Amino acid sequence: MSTFAAATAVRALAPGRYGVDIDPGWASGSRPNGGYVLAAAARAALAAADAAGGDHPHAVATSAHFLSPPDDGPAEVDTEVLRTGRTATTIRFTLRQGPSIRVVGHLTAGRLAGHAPEWQRDPEPPALRSEAECVASSSQTPMGSIPLLDQVRVSMDPDHLGWAVGRPAGRLEMLAWMTPAQGALDDPLFALVAVDTMPPTPWDLRPVGWTPTVELTAHLRAIPAPGALRVRAQATLVADGWFDEDAEVWDSAGRLVARSRQICRIQEASA
Amino acid sequence: MSTFAAATAVRALAPGRYGVDIDPGWASGSRPNGGYVLAAAARAALAAADAAGGDHPHAVATSAHFLSPPDDGPAEVDTEVLRTGRTATTIRFTLRQGPSIRVVGHLTAGRLAGHAPEWQRDPEPPALRSEAECVASSSQTPMGSIPLLDQVRVSMDPDHLGWAVGRPAGRLEMLAWMTPAQGALDDPLFALVAVDTMPPTPWDLRPVGWTPTVELTAHLRAIPAPGALRVRAQATLVADGWFDEDAEVWDSAGRLVARSRQICRIQEASA
Repeated sequence: MSTFAAATAVRALAPGRYGVDIDPGWASGSRPNGGYVLAAAARAALAAADAAGGDHPHAVATSAHFLSPPDDGPAEVDTEVLRTGRTATTIRFTLRQGPSIRVVGHLTAGRLAGHAPEWQRDPEPPALRSEAECVASSSQTPMGSIPLLDQVRVSMDPDHLGWAVGRPAGRLEMLAWMTPAQGALDDPLFALVAVDTMPPTPWDLRPVGWTPTVELTAHLRAIPAPGALRVRAQATLVADGWFDEDAEVWDSAGRLVARSRQICRIQEASA
Repeated sequence: MSTFAAATAVRALAPGRYGVDIDPGWASGSRPNGGYVLAAAARAALAAADAAGGDHPHAVATSAHFLSPPDDGPAEVDTEVLRTGRTATTIRFTLRQGPSIRVVGHLTAGRLAGHAPEWQRDPEPPALRSEAECVASSSQTPMGSIPLLDQVRVSMDPDHLGWAVGRPAGRLEMLAWMTPAQGALDDPLFALVAVDTMPPTPWDLRPVGWTPTVELTAHLRAIPAPGALRVRAQATLVADGWFDEDAEVWDSAGRLVARSRQICRIQEASA
């Protein structure tokens, strides 16, 4: 079991090229969690931005397309710094294993200043039950092994959990507390995992099989205060075998720290 | 004045390389509208997907980072087809003018089947006043010339228009009807313009200057039925000089056809 920092650590292999080891401990079923893989790629992109001399340590906007699921083990991230400006640096990244492209994307890095927000739509985090009243997830689930849940403590709001006992409510909304099992919650990139750790919201509609993420974009807006994160995931539209899913992450100080949106395919459950 | 099809037409220059002319008729102030530029880049990416032999004519997921505002006139779009699968083709695109990169991104193309949605969160489009009760925009505004508004007929809901007469409501939500001034509304890429044509929502907070888009991702979910589109734009968080803005586009049949999210900088209005 490795901490988030260790599981996403990158090493410089050549100018613009970084190595990372995809850690089996951060998998959902047999595949690495997409948010975890994205966090590793983002770590490499931020290293490239740092090497380019900008003062933009935070992944303000990361957009990625997922081409094929990575295997556990070594991967390479090729980066290209496309622009360095006063307020932002934009980096292209490509995560490969051998000839196979796994994830591609762009990251615009900036510096999150930590001031109080000038304005926000929802002054309060989503209402969910206290962590003690929520249902702590285990990595050994009826749907199989999810090692990721040994790394991220996920406590699901029971009011949105009917699907887990065969009573989907058709709301396609899930709420949970999330905390890294090891290490202080001081790494803004952990939010990239948090936005992708909830069970797929279509499970609240009907049983579905694998729901591969095709595209995911995340905006990090603040450095989280220490303590458990509150996460809400909601789908908007299920059509033509595609669904979208928005996630919001709030910190213990009641601040909106990240928002993401992904679009996924639905693969039907095998009979 | 040129139609949307003409203003976003691409011509093959070399394998994977396309030419497009940035049309001054689609500008907001002195800069081309970002959604329009993205539509032109997406047109090139879809041409590349078509040349690669896939049957994926629709821009299901397009994510772009805006590096510098284009000038009017010729631009080149370099494309690279990264993956062609059964349900999707993913293309990387880079829109340049000379050595200057303007917009970079990835597009995952698929085929929108046009079936009734399996599930959607909001069964009804956003409530806005009838087109007759809305305020038809002119390209000659108190804030300067917006030629785009001669190409896109925008009728703003007056209940969300207080900011225009010095009474911002602090809701950062705008609603409008939008229709291309010329040509049938049968081009799904027009939605990329529609999601970026609303006035910046922070105008409903206070006067601000230019609000350059840094990153924009759009998901197209259905081919719009003919008729005026309903568009809603909403900000969620204004902090550290950044704001996000979500837009939803509904067609005349009451179907959600597109969703987008962008993150932008705020440049303060000059005194």
